[in-house]
Amino acid sequence: MKKNCIVAQSGGPTAAINASLAGVISGVLNSDSYDRIYGAVHGIQGVFNRNFLDLTELAGLAYSPIDHLSTTPAMYLGSCRYKMPSIQDSPETYEEIFRIFEEMNIGAFFYIGGNDSMDTTAKLAEYARKTGNSIKIAGVPKTIDNDLIHTDHTPGYGSAAKYIATSMLEIAHDTYIYDIPCVTIVEIMGRDAGWLTAAAALARNNYNPTPQLIYLPEVPFDKERFLQDVETEIKKSKNIVIAISEGIRYADGTYVSSHAATDDKFGHAQLSGAGKVLEALVKDRLKIKVRSVELNILQRCAGHLASRTDLDEAVKLGEFAVSFTAKGYTGFMTATRRKSDIPYLYDIEMADVSQIANRAKTVPLSWITPEHNNITQEFMNYMRPLIQGEVSISYRDGLPVYIEIPHLRK
Amino acid sequence: MKKNCIVAQSGGPTAAINASLAGVISGVLNSDSYDRIYGAVHGIQGVFNRNFLDLTELAGLAYSPIDHLSTTPAMYLGSCRYKMPSIQDSPETYEEIFRIFEEMNIGAFFYIGGNDSMDTTAKLAEYARKTGNSIKIAGVPKTIDNDLIHTDHTPGYGSAAKYIATSMLEIAHDTYIYDIPCVTIVEIMGRDAGWLTAAAALARNNYNPTPQLIYLPEVPFDKERFLQDVETEIKKSKNIVIAISEGIRYADGTYVSSHAATDDKFGHAQLSGAGKVLEALVKDRLKIKVRSVELNILQRCAGHLASRTDLDEAVKLGEFAVSFTAKGYTGFMTATRRKSDIPYLYDIEMADVSQIANRAKTVPLSWITPEHNNITQEFMNYMRPLIQGEVSISYRDGLPVYIEIPHLRK
Repeated sequence: MKKNCIVAQSGGPTAAINASLAGVISGVLNSDSYDRIYGAVHGIQGVFNRNFLDLTELAGLAYSPIDHLSTTPAMYLGSCRYKMPSIQDSPETYEEIFRIFEEMNIGAFFYIGGNDSMDTTAKLAEYARKTGNSIKIAGVPKTIDNDLIHTDHTPGYGSAAKYIATSMLEIAHDTYIYDIPCVTIVEIMGRDAGWLTAAAALARNNYNPTPQLIYLPEVPFDKERFLQDVETEIKKSKNIVIAISEGIRYADGTYVSSHAATDDKFGHAQLSGAGKVLEALVKDRLKIKVRSVELNILQRCAGHLASRTDLDEAVKLGEFAVSFTAKGYTGFMTATRRKSDIPYLYDIEMADVSQIANRAKTVPLSWITPEHNNITQEFMNYMRPLIQGEVSISYRDGLPVYIEIPHLRK
Repeated sequence: MKKNCIVAQSGGPTAAINASLAGVISGVLNSDSYDRIYGAVHGIQGVFNRNFLDLTELAGLAYSPIDHLSTTPAMYLGSCRYKMPSIQDSPETYEEIFRIFEEMNIGAFFYIGGNDSMDTTAKLAEYARKTGNSIKIAGVPKTIDNDLIHTDHTPGYGSAAKYIATSMLEIAHDTYIYDIPCVTIVEIMGRDAGWLTAAAALARNNYNPTPQLIYLPEVPFDKERFLQDVETEIKKSKNIVIAISEGIRYADGTYVSSHAATDDKFGHAQLSGAGKVLEALVKDRLKIKVRSVELNILQRCAGHLASRTDLDEAVKLGEFAVSFTAKGYTGFMTATRRKSDIPYLYDIEMADVSQIANRAKTVPLSWITPEHNNITQEFMNYMRPLIQGEVSISYRDGLPVYIEIPHLRK
């Protein structure tokens, strides 16, 4: 009798995480190795709660729900923010999960997510190894933050980058209209890594030099140099646009954001407001008209502007996760290895998931200019392929048609 | 010898104002009545400064720049924030403008804009009438705010509404993912009128009841009733989304926004932050997870998500302005008069521009529910036709291709 599979999603939403799910589903459906594919609702907690959807049935429908799924933003299966205890601290947690796996005749478990999800994946794989359980445990990467190591980039990043670059271009058109000096500060997601903020630079073209200045959290933010940068640029152009990461911080490590940094369950500082702080600074010190814009959660859920390249890769990374487990591999995360920028070529391989969790990949310092206020051409070459291509989504009554998610609204 | 025309744009940007411009250009080019069409750069100030582009030449290009123009957001000709003095206070201002019109053999002047621009249009028309000048002065409406009287709605509103509704739907997918109670407050533009905020309701569908609550500036905001509304809704759904106008205010007239209200040149209070204020209120009083999102300037400049219906109407309102002046009319603004919601039908007519300036059309109180926390089906029926249809824009290198605006970056 063939084994079944479980797939779950965790962490924050992206425009590509349902494409990864679609890839896992199609991988299982097209595989000779597995029978049914169940989706655990709300991440690993869906396993505890025995809250499953039988995704095998999606394939039996008349229309193509897998394609429809892959262009729907956020998470079809829902997410959780659950920090797995260590095996030492709570062996009963693992015993319970693997008892459920056993009951459901599970041969492979796929966890789609970012850093914290790979922590869960690594722990489950470790437990299986220690207990001699043959179940295969695989991670499938996704995070708009692009901060996973051992992969060229992560699904979700390209779509977020495309949304950010498009928004920056449209903001540029918006800023051009007045004939008086004006500074527009755009705050972009990125607590510890500047990958998303750098994507703002993709909006530059032969008539649009904005954003003229880009500040990433990888290098210390210097308030006085920032003010000098603004003064220099405003002399060159009437209107300037500045892209900043939410996580920019001073040399002493304190965040530019004025909000008190509180901790979430994973120990990350929660931030907002660096744009507002710099808006006030420019207003007070330079007496120039200034405004700030926070792109906020639309960066990660704007399915209508997803990158075709990003979604296609997400599907493949899901499909390959299935084929690798079918070949007997476990304890890995599927990863991309880039072979060429132009033309864009990559391989899909496996990375040891225990080496990925709880680390973060930041922007190489060599990709940030020595002045700490811009990025290099090499970084542009890295990002450009990831935003290529558009998705074709249906509209009904003026709005995008996404896959329905009534099971998340109980 | 045929006369020439001047067209200019003013006020804030929209995704449709270049479609209005395209309509005026094509109206002139297809007219037997006029020769050349000049664009004044930066509104009426472009006339003073003799800063003109010869738009007649756009039509001579091999590709179709008029189509390309109409799908480009913000303002091809730039804007200004210039309050025309009264004729009594500064007759020399009017003498100077009409001297330039005379020099350039101008037969008609078209001003595309909102309330303040119609003030300028009305004053110019009044001066022409008083001095017996035969030049025709016409206003072409645009404003995302939809607050012009004597027209069913304004170009720019439909595209902004489509962006808002799409964003709300994507935010809904984003909010669904967690299994814990959460309140998301979305702050939408609208100082005195709730037209834009109401568009959030268009995101509702058979699986999405969000936004459950909508608060508009037309009715007093009651803090305690708001908290009761949130408590009631959070019991029904784990995740609730609330749409609020930036301009909501208490019964005594003070804004919910905590920012000091300062005045711009036209005497409007400048606002931001009502969402942040309510976020803090919910956190403090109800101890529920809460976040706020400000849609900000992308509401008015997201050309990639413009409404086809909106752009088509904007073109027609521009074309009709030309044909009405060619027939000898002056001192009007083109306007839409709706004949039917389903199927959607409207006429284009003229409204006396002197009756439009310095007034604002707010949402009828009968379109707001008695509880002051939602809108009626009649309001939905009004909005729905305006967001129908998508624009086809080209993408290059992953980004929308908009018309180039080097003349705004001198």
